[in-house]
Amino acid sequence: MNDTTTGFSMQTLGRQARQAARILRSASGAAKAAALRAMADGLRARRAWLQAENEHDLRAAAERGLDAPMMDRLRLSDRALDLMIEGLLQIAAMPDPVGSLSETTTRPNGMRVARMRVPLGVIGIIYESRPNVTIDAAALCLKSGNATILRGGSEAFHSNRALGAIIQAGLEAAGLPPHAVQVVDTTDRAAVGEMITHPEWIDVIIPRGGKGLIARLADESRVPLIKHLEGNCHVYVDKAADPDRALDIAVNAKTYRTGICGAMETLLVHADVAAAWLPRAGARFAELGVELRACPRAAALLPGSVPATEADWATEFHAPILAVRVVDSLDEAMDHIARYSSEHTESIVTEDLSAAQRFQREVDSSSVYVNLPTCFADGYEYGLGAEIGISTNRLHARGPVGLEGLTIQKWVLTGEGQLRG
Amino acid sequence: MNDTTTGFSMQTLGRQARQAARILRSASGAAKAAALRAMADGLRARRAWLQAENEHDLRAAAERGLDAPMMDRLRLSDRALDLMIEGLLQIAAMPDPVGSLSETTTRPNGMRVARMRVPLGVIGIIYESRPNVTIDAAALCLKSGNATILRGGSEAFHSNRALGAIIQAGLEAAGLPPHAVQVVDTTDRAAVGEMITHPEWIDVIIPRGGKGLIARLADESRVPLIKHLEGNCHVYVDKAADPDRALDIAVNAKTYRTGICGAMETLLVHADVAAAWLPRAGARFAELGVELRACPRAAALLPGSVPATEADWATEFHAPILAVRVVDSLDEAMDHIARYSSEHTESIVTEDLSAAQRFQREVDSSSVYVNLPTCFADGYEYGLGAEIGISTNRLHARGPVGLEGLTIQKWVLTGEGQLRG
Repeated sequence: MNDTTTGFSMQTLGRQARQAARILRSASGAAKAAALRAMADGLRARRAWLQAENEHDLRAAAERGLDAPMMDRLRLSDRALDLMIEGLLQIAAMPDPVGSLSETTTRPNGMRVARMRVPLGVIGIIYESRPNVTIDAAALCLKSGNATILRGGSEAFHSNRALGAIIQAGLEAAGLPPHAVQVVDTTDRAAVGEMITHPEWIDVIIPRGGKGLIARLADESRVPLIKHLEGNCHVYVDKAADPDRALDIAVNAKTYRTGICGAMETLLVHADVAAAWLPRAGARFAELGVELRACPRAAALLPGSVPATEADWATEFHAPILAVRVVDSLDEAMDHIARYSSEHTESIVTEDLSAAQRFQREVDSSSVYVNLPTCFADGYEYGLGAEIGISTNRLHARGPVGLEGLTIQKWVLTGEGQLRG
Repeated sequence: MNDTTTGFSMQTLGRQARQAARILRSASGAAKAAALRAMADGLRARRAWLQAENEHDLRAAAERGLDAPMMDRLRLSDRALDLMIEGLLQIAAMPDPVGSLSETTTRPNGMRVARMRVPLGVIGIIYESRPNVTIDAAALCLKSGNATILRGGSEAFHSNRALGAIIQAGLEAAGLPPHAVQVVDTTDRAAVGEMITHPEWIDVIIPRGGKGLIARLADESRVPLIKHLEGNCHVYVDKAADPDRALDIAVNAKTYRTGICGAMETLLVHADVAAAWLPRAGARFAELGVELRACPRAAALLPGSVPATEADWATEFHAPILAVRVVDSLDEAMDHIARYSSEHTESIVTEDLSAAQRFQREVDSSSVYVNLPTCFADGYEYGLGAEIGISTNRLHARGPVGLEGLTIQKWVLTGEGQLRG
């Protein structure tokens, strides 16, 4: 793509990213941390300018009638900027994942075989309105030694361009190539099409946004994606569950935040405990304003519930709605999950060790819990320090992706002239 | 695809593979090892039948005028069958990678976070003539808990069908689902097109074959590939190289076998040692019948060489041909590699620790060696025990891929009712 009105060329960005990636690959941890701290300084020093640039986006959004939650996500408030600064400093302080050696073995012929952690190369981030992704994603990719091409939503065009300028100033202050992080400086939609079809420029695409965007990119991309499709998460209350614990877990899993991907969407309850436990749970959910969509057996125990349809079992509601089903066994619960789950996060509530172990081993989701609410699905909660997203892929990385998921191991062998054959 | 003449349906295979994968995921290591040993027994017991089936393929190949090396690869000789039996028993004896837990940490709230190694799911293998791939690939995929759909070359149709029957008998003898390994029982080329476009049946495709096949699959596949594109490997003789060691390494790297992907294709020599070292190397390569294609400075030291063209630097010769270039520094050597390498395997010959470390850190190939010939690029040599192939991907697995590369880690969290927020 060559935008003659702006001089923008994706090919130029791609080549610059490749050159920067080569330098970044062997940049010192100190230089990368210095760049991140310089970016934090830049956000502090140029706050008024950033908010004035952000105001252009907010005005345009208001004219187009964006709703209040969208406007909130778009706004570079003092609090939003403080969080970005804090995030940059946290990532700066984390250990550098690049260059670490592991699994060194010595072969019978004396040569030493090890694996070295290295960056993936050039990462493309395609995201929707929230400008904080610009800083968060750039910081994680830089820390892990990758060059980044960022393509945010057109609603945040001025904000992202301003943040990109601060990022590049930070890179230059630390002696790193400014093209290590490039913000796509056009609102032309063709830019996304170019990013996903040029593996010679970009090694992996990480999309952040709605399911529609991601499904379309997955369908059309010739560059591998680390992607998050959806979170249709289940909690199974086993016959050996502690009833009070099960209640707290179910309520937290559904209501901590109904809009997150780790929110429980279907509750499965063993028939042996349903009669005693479900009415209590139903009363709590009713108090909390959660609509219950129940199978016939559950409905008999849940006054006020509506009948669940086949579609409900497969739906990520992202809302105070919960599907509820009574099952006759652990196997039936796992069959239901195998059929309807999006392989994101599932949890069993039980005091029975053997049921817990079977559930953790046999349920094929990226995160499988025992006695915890599914809403813990988050890189910070897992101790990753930071998270670029949650992967529902089955290759490279499953579940929350931190710095390690932005790297890979290569083989390094050292010998003294051993020969083969 | 529904082949009405044979009753073959790829959709049926896909569904059966999914069902089998779910059972295989939690199959015991003992059952999987028993199945592999039963397959070895089957190969022993039904040798005469296998060789008779193979004879159909050999006759058809002879009629179509296949060359001698192709006929050799197709033949289920006693030795070929013995190697398959040995491979099965070796893989049976390896530790089961599935279910192992690592990196257990306890979070501040007391919940325990660990990662469990799990199979990828359903693996599709698309390969050309060699029927031994049928056994090797099925064995590695089974050991790692994956279901497999195997699509071999039409030249080996009868051989692969017979091997598939022995594999399925072995699975049944061990109480495992026979659909855990399915051989595509049609020569219709549409089967490949279906395998690469149905992510709901197959999680990853591993193609084994020529560059043409793999590039085409990479272009058209909607299922992720673990693929090997090409091996344009380099050896760099540093100014601090031990000259005798450098000579042995260069000769071994080129001539151990010229047809393997780890064979050296370009030799880079530091200018400081070129005058003394290159004529000796040239004489050895001349004795061994290796054609040298040299840059102008190298040509002056290599009587009998021909001038290298730009295309030679980018070529995987797969033949007794070697490109030779004199460089002025380690940086120039690494620049050359960054420009022309296929990111497979590169080696530096040096006694200088700092040069060795820079080379291993900065060269962006899947294997980077010090003082070793590139022809060591092989899973057995690395101690993986077995190898499904060598990956030139930048995601999931780089370099030789053994059992670990056929698995991935999921997150398993265990708590006592901790809640979020």
